[in-house]
Parts: sequence; structure tokens; C-alpha cells
Amino acid sequence: MSDAPLSLTTSRRAFLRHGATAAVAIPAVGFLASCDVARSDAPAAPPHDPAKQAVPATPAATAPTLTAREKAERMDAMHEAGIKAFPAKTEGKGNVVMQPRLEKGVKVYDLTCAEIEWEIAPGKKKTAWAYNNQVPGPQIRVREGDRVRVNLINNLQESTAIHFHGLELPVAMDGVPYITQPPVKPGETFVYELTVPNAGSHMYHSHHNATRQVALGLLGAFIVEPKNRTREPKVDVDYVMVLNDGPHGYTVNGKGFPATEPIVAKLGQTVRIRYMNEGMMIHPMHLHGMHMTVIAKDGWDQPAPWKCDTLNIAPGERWDVLVKCNNPGTWAFHCHILSHAENDHGMFGMVTALIVK
Amino acid sequence: MSDAPLSLTTSRRAFLRHGATAAVAIPAVGFLASCDVARSDAPAAPPHDPAKQAVPATPAATAPTLTAREKAERMDAMHEAGIKAFPAKTEGKGNVVMQPRLEKGVKVYDLTCAEIEWEIAPGKKKTAWAYNNQVPGPQIRVREGDRVRVNLINNLQESTAIHFHGLELPVAMDGVPYITQPPVKPGETFVYELTVPNAGSHMYHSHHNATRQVALGLLGAFIVEPKNRTREPKVDVDYVMVLNDGPHGYTVNGKGFPATEPIVAKLGQTVRIRYMNEGMMIHPMHLHGMHMTVIAKDGWDQPAPWKCDTLNIAPGERWDVLVKCNNPGTWAFHCHILSHAENDHGMFGMVTALIVK
Amino acid sequence: MSDAPLSLTTSRRAFLRHGATAAVAIPAVGFLASCDVARSDAPAAPPHDPAKQAVPATPAATAPTLTAREKAERMDAMHEAGIKAFPAKTEGKGNVVMQPRLEKGVKVYDLTCAEIEWEIAPGKKKTAWAYNNQVPGPQIRVREGDRVRVNLINNLQESTAIHFHGLELPVAMDGVPYITQPPVKPGETFVYELTVPNAGSHMYHSHHNATRQVALGLLGAFIVEPKNRTREPKVDVDYVMVLNDGPHGYTVNGKGFPATEPIVAKLGQTVRIRYMNEGMMIHPMHLHGMHMTVIAKDGWDQPAPWKCDTLNIAPGERWDVLVKCNNPGTWAFHCHILSHAENDHGMFGMVTALIVK
Repeated sequence: MSDAPLSLTTSRRAFLRHGATAAVAIPAVGFLASCDVARSDAPAAPPHDPAKQAVPATPAATAPTLTAREKAERMDAMHEAGIKAFPAKTEGKGNVVMQPRLEKGVKVYDLTCAEIEWEIAPGKKKTAWAYNNQVPGPQIRVREGDRVRVNLINNLQESTAIHFHGLELPVAMDGVPYITQPPVKPGETFVYELTVPNAGSHMYHSHHNATRQVALGLLGAFIVEPKNRTREPKVDVDYVMVLNDGPHGYTVNGKGFPATEPIVAKLGQTVRIRYMNEGMMIHPMHLHGMHMTVIAKDGWDQPAPWKCDTLNIAPGERWDVLVKCNNPGTWAFHCHILSHAENDHGMFGMVTALIVK
Repeated sequence: MSDAPLSLTTSRRAFLRHGATAAVAIPAVGFLASCDVARSDAPAAPPHDPAKQAVPATPAATAPTLTAREKAERMDAMHEAGIKAFPAKTEGKGNVVMQPRLEKGVKVYDLTCAEIEWEIAPGKKKTAWAYNNQVPGPQIRVREGDRVRVNLINNLQESTAIHFHGLELPVAMDGVPYITQPPVKPGETFVYELTVPNAGSHMYHSHHNATRQVALGLLGAFIVEPKNRTREPKVDVDYVMVLNDGPHGYTVNGKGFPATEPIVAKLGQTVRIRYMNEGMMIHPMHLHGMHMTVIAKDGWDQPAPWKCDTLNIAPGERWDVLVKCNNPGTWAFHCHILSHAENDHGMFGMVTALIVK
Repeated sequence: MSDAPLSLTTSRRAFLRHGATAAVAIPAVGFLASCDVARSDAPAAPPHDPAKQAVPATPAATAPTLTAREKAERMDAMHEAGIKAFPAKTEGKGNVVMQPRLEKGVKVYDLTCAEIEWEIAPGKKKTAWAYNNQVPGPQIRVREGDRVRVNLINNLQESTAIHFHGLELPVAMDGVPYITQPPVKPGETFVYELTVPNAGSHMYHSHHNATRQVALGLLGAFIVEPKNRTREPKVDVDYVMVLNDGPHGYTVNGKGFPATEPIVAKLGQTVRIRYMNEGMMIHPMHLHGMHMTVIAKDGWDQPAPWKCDTLNIAPGERWDVLVKCNNPGTWAFHCHILSHAENDHGMFGMVTALIVK
């Protein structure tokens, strides 16, 4: 974890006290580099057949006589390298809160969609279709009752449109081509203007050829703070976690482990996590070390909060949870469909950490 | 939408006001016809790899020099044609409420299962195994305490049996071959006789070779109204929505978009939707424009109603929701696993609309 | 059901009264034996294409002139044979409650992981990676506040580690290699020592190369009884049901039907079922004849109990339900993703029964 800001909690003392042997040396760089090529977080591997995700056969020429121990150490070294790289630097950051410009009391957001290259994990670059060169697109944060204008500028080669998923808008602003508006053709602009209705954790995304366009990145968070803030829980960290699966692999806010971003809080603080699933599979997110208190579904308060440590997020759903950070350490935080999070080359995809300092 | 009863809300005025260009002309009929052949709502396409659902390469012979704009317009024309065709006429209608005949105070339903041809979407005909030539089978609506007889007449080439999913019956009427009864052989009849126990949104379906038989259509809704109606919510429209996936593609009440049926309500009315999943995948149903209030699970009242706009329905589950129709317009209503609802040829499968007039 | 303890409820009288014909004779043993080979509960068959799970063509040489009725009887005979075999005897039993040894007030559990052969269903033997030769591993039952030591002895050919899923432990005991501890290499031992924190239905499993290790069997139930038992529901049977999918097929407590274990209760008794999903797919478990009252999620009480007959269990989740056994009979109890439970050769995989005597 060379340039990582977090301090891992592996305790050398505890390690030795429990009688484990010393850590192995990391194999030569060349070996690891080839492993990086082999590491894949594409969802192509069928989740139901982990047997096919077995350790790849070691090429006979390079390692004809590896013992079981040596094989284990090679595998472990790949796992270790992944963890040490976390959080890995990559080009581009999505889901960044966007500051609107004000025009006569209207909060104006320009969203330009275009094809870009997006680095999902170190060296893993994929074609993305992005709003303002971000995947997810810029995070929009407004307040109930705000007047908002979204200028959609389409620099893609195909038509598009924006649906504000969860917002109860007049139908002309609902963003479904041929039902509520014409598609926005390549080179065109479309203006969405709205008075923000219901509060909560919502989303915006393409609703045209959406199986492809959303999978490639045309999506973002649209957070609406309630007018009456007295009913809002007091939180120290308010974190939006957008999940996706598709041609970019399994991603959290547009990145796959080890390029995902840890959530950091101080002991005693409360973190609010706003889960959003923009993919095509469920993702039961599991937090280690502490539980989550579920407070809202799709922006609506649950009638009574309830607790869990694994929350199943289905496509299109949003869930808000609170985590009382009362347990110090670096806590794994991942999708519990294990094939979305780890293979024999180590962790990848839908893995991050909650760090309680 | 030539002969469609609904008026789409695309506002020409809003359209022009926002500066979008005029809609393109629809390509020649021959092109659209070939697109119809290409449009597929079969679940064979893996939901996790939208990259493979890319725009099919345009044959070089017919379109060697298409510009991006021309390609976009071709794609859009297919999308538009699908929407315009909605709700498309097809042969056959399933889930129709069946009137029983009365025999000495017993409500008698004859259900004959047989192989038929079923039109899922215009021109898309598939082999189905159906009760009374309907997919889903006839909707049965009875009341708690009613005496009911179901005569199952098996005109299929293989044995079958009916399980009343959700009803707490005496075990002899549970419909599981070799556990609670013998299978009903080809040409045979079996009589289920029961005093209707618990109220709620239930189902009936085959419980023999069921992976195949239910997928092919041997399923239906079994709605039980409570004896005491004072606890029932007052609704203006009571709609049963049966979801399925399998050899017929992704279907809502036996049809795929654009042959699905819109739900129609007047402004201010309350719609009750009874979701039932008879398929083998989850289907998170997303309603645009308004939220749903969840009131019951598997026929049992939830301890407190709760709100959402995307409700995840798993196989075998039933969920009852209320929608207060306070937002006028034609609202898209679809599974949010986007690959169950749209591809580059337009919407298909699990898409319908809630029309608030 | 030659040597089965349960009495099936097929009533000969009801059978004849309803006019069904006599049961067919079971085909020759040779035929059934070949069927057993053909029966497969591997998850390889895509759940979305039941059409491909059609009846295999009968070899022309052996049955050139079968009538539909004969074909139906052959299929039925396979179904019957499966049911009659239930509960089938197999070698090995997992999820057995383990008695710890006491060392100075500490409850000590030795868990040795090793590769074994595991019989999933009669004659179906697969390679498993197991704790103490059991799949699931031994069930650990302790009490809030207990001091517990788990000695992990690794006799596998690759490294491993144990994560106590759901327990809010100090991070050094969280079991994630390179984040909270070094991996436990082949031949090594690691000691987990903990004061049991939060009560509830939890799990322990590998958190190293876990997609493979958990799928192969490195998992078990970790049940924590609350210190204050006054809030616990009074139950007569407390049953832990661990679900898995992967190279062993669809399993309930490590076995596939007909080798699964029925749950047995007396009329009027209350059964608590603790569902745990260690697989990579959802499993909506459906109980016939009676409903379930959901009382806890991931070990935490639900704010208000709620009722259902089909409960969707996602990977990593635990759900506790109560069943009031007020309906006598043998009740099918299975995953309602039907392709996890039945094909044209009969029931398999995630099927068991609740027998109310």
C-alpha cells in the first residue's frame, strides 16, 4: 500500500503471537505484471460456476516443479498486491458534486454526453459514454422546491434522453423518447426544466437504448434534500455509492477495486450511505464490523428503521442507511455475490473499505 | 400510435420551445419489417453483458455510407415504431376473470390444459401450454370461506397437477405429485375441492415438471377477497400483473411490449397492483411519475405500509401496492433490469404504461 | 419411500374418489439407473431458458414407438422414484452442532480444513473443501459474552482465513487476509479469539479466494444466543438452513434432494428457521401449506414481524422466521426459482419438506 492514505490493521504482534509464519516475499515484478493482465472483473464469468474460476494452470515452461506451498504463495502474492495497491490511482473521478450556475434564481446544470476512455482500474481502460467526462456523471444535489434546469448536450453518435429516476415530475420532463419527448439526436440539445418535487436519493440516466447507454456510463446521482431538514438524520459523512455491472465490469462509482475509493470516518461518527443500483444484477452489499440501519427506500422513509449487515440492492433501487462508526479499523465492504468481488487473482470489482480512525 | 386508445403526451409545443429538431420520417416499411424480425425479447441474451447487445452492423450492401446521424435515425425509427404500435393487437388475452358456475353452492371452475399457439407480440407466435387457451390462465377471484371446485382436465401429452400457491389448504389439495396426489396423466381429470382459507393475492400453477410447465404458461392468479372487507383499501382499479420469463421472453400477463396492456386510471383515482412473479428471475418493477405504497406481501398485510418507486419481485412472490394517481400523463412502467425492457431496436418485453387521464 | 421415516399424505381414498387412474408400474431398474445418471442439479443449466431443459429425446433404438402416455409414464416414474427416495441416505452430514472443549472458561473449537470427497446426493460425489469433514462446517452455537477460541488448522493446498460474517469483532479477528491478518498458509494454524459480541444468526466462512473456497464448502453457521433470553421467541424446533450453489449444485445444508433432510414437527409446535445464503444467487424459499413470520434480518430483530410464504434470501443474508405448524401433512419446501428444484427427471437440488405430524 505504497502511497495509500489508510493504515492497514494487520498487527505484526498479533500475527506473531498467533504463531503464523512470516509473510512470503513478493514474486518478481514480471510475474505480477502478467497477473494483472490475467485479472479480470468482467461479469462475463458465470456467477454460478466458480469451479471454472479455478487457478489457471501454471505454464509448464516457467514453473514445472512448483510445490503446493509455492503455488499458494504465488496466489497470495497476487492477493497481497491488490490490497497493497488500494486505493489505486486512476485517471478520472466520477460522482463529483457539481456546482450549478445561477440564472435568475434557476440552478443550471449543463450535461454534455460524449464517448470517452475511462480508466476503471489501473491500466484497464474502456470506452465509456459519459456526462461531463465522468462515470458516474456529476452528482447533482438540490433542495425540494428548487427551480432547476438541465441542459443536455448530445455529443454522442446516437440519440439519447435523460430520465430523472424517482422524481415525480410533470410528464413532459420524464425523459422517455416518443412517449414524453422526441429523442435528442446527435448534436442536439434538450432542456429539462423542473421545480424539484419529492426529496430523497434519486438518479438520472439515459432512457434511450438504455441497456447500452446506462451500462456504458450515462447515469448519475440526483440527491434532493428535504425542505424541512428537521426530519433528516444528523450525519458526519454523506456518501453516495452507485453500483454498476456491464462492459466496465463490476464497479462502485465507476471504478473497480483496487481503484475504488474508501469511505473514511472518525470513531463515533455517523456515515450515511445512499446505495444506487444502475446495473442489471442484484448486489447484496456487505459491511464488515458494524451494522447498517436502513432508513429510506427510493427516497421515502421506511416506517421504522431496521438493521442489517448485508443489504440486497436490486437494479433501479436506492436504499439509504446509517452506519454508526463505533468499531475502529479498516473494514472490508463488498458485494456478497463473491464472484463480483474476488477470484483466485485477488479482490477486484465491487470491493471498497470503510475506514474508522 | 395509429389505433391506440392512449394519447401520448409528447408536447409539440414543448418540443419546439426546447429547440429540438423535427422528428425524422419513418424509414420504408421493408426496413421496419426486417427490424421486427431482428427484435427479440428472448431472455437468451445474458443480462450481464450489454456490450454484446450492440447495434448490429448495418449490411454493407444496403447502407455503405450511412452517417452517424443516419444511423441514429434508423435506430430511433425502430424505437418510435415500437412505441407507436403500443398497445398492439395480438390474438388471445390471458388473465381474464373467469365466472364460475354454481353447483349446490359450490363455485366450479373447469380448467383444461392443452398445447396452443400463443401470440406474445405482433407476429411472434410461440408454443404455449395453457389453461383454457389463456396465458396466464383465467383469473380466479373468490372470497374467504367460499366452497370452490377446480376440475383439472389434462389434454397435454404429459402429466400435470395444480398447486394453489399461497393457499393454506389441507395437504391432499396441495397439488404436488407423489407427495400429496398422483400426477394427472394425459387424458385424465382431477378434482380439487376446497373451502377457501386465507385471503390475499395468490396463484395457481403446475407443480409437475414445473420448470417447463410454468414457463410455458401453466399458471394463473388466484385472488381471495377477505370476508371482512372493512380492512380492504378502497381502490378504483384492481390490476393483477403476472410476470414471467422463459421461452416466451419477458412477459407481463403473457404478452411482451408493445402487445402489453396499459393500466388506465382517472386523475385522483387509486390503483391497486397485485404483482406476481411466475418466472425464474427477479424483476424490479419501476413506475415513472408516481410512487407505490406497499401494503401486502404474499397476501399478508405488511405491518406498516411503505413507499417506493422500484419494487423487486422475486420468483414465487406476490406484492400488493397502491398507486395514488395524482400525476396526469402516460407513464412508462417496466422492469428495471434494462435488458428485460429495451435493446437497440427499441422497447420490448416487460414494459407497459400507467395512463392517468 | 422404502426406508423413509415420513408418511406421505397421498390418500388412496381421495385418489379413487376423484376418478384418477391407478398409478403406473415403475419401469425396470435399468431405466431408472440411467435416469439417475442423467439427473443433474448442477447450476450450469441457464435459469432463463427452461426450453432447453426439455425432455431428452428417447433413444430410437430402445423406444421407437412410445406413445405420449408411455412417455408421460416414464417421466412420472422418474419423479416418483425421486420422491420415494426422500430422505435418501448419503455419506456425511454437515451443519452438526459442535461441542467445544473448555479451557479455563474459554470455549475452544478446532476447525481443520481439508479436501474431502462429499456425497451430495446418492452416488453423486464431489470434491469439497471442508471444515472437520463437514459441509456446511460444524454448527457453532454460543452465547453473547462467551469467550471463544477458534483454532483454524489449514490442511488445504492453498492459504485460507476465517471471516465471522455478522459478528462485530475487533478488526484483528475479522479474517480478511492482508487487511486484518496474514493468510493462513498450507500447514499453518491461526487462532481467532473473541468475546462474542452481537446475538443472532451469523456465519463463518473463508475470506480468501472465497469465490472458490466458499463454493467448495468452507462455510458454517455461527449462532449466538442473546444473554437476555426473555426477548427470544419460544420455539420447539430451531433449524438452521444453509443454502449454497456452485460446483456442488443447489444444496440445502450441503445436500441436494432427495438427500436433503426433512424438518419434522408436531402439530401445534413452532419451528424457527434460520436461513443463510452462502451461494452466489438469490433463493426465494417457498413453504407450502403454512406461512412464515419473519422476525429477524442478519441477526437483528425486525421492528415488526411480517408474514409471507416465499422469502427471498440473497447471498450473505440471514433471515429468521417462525412457522406455527397448524396444518398437518408433508409440505414441499423449496426454492421457487423452479430450475433450482425440478427438471423433467424430477425434483433435485433445493427441495426439502416440512413434516407436521
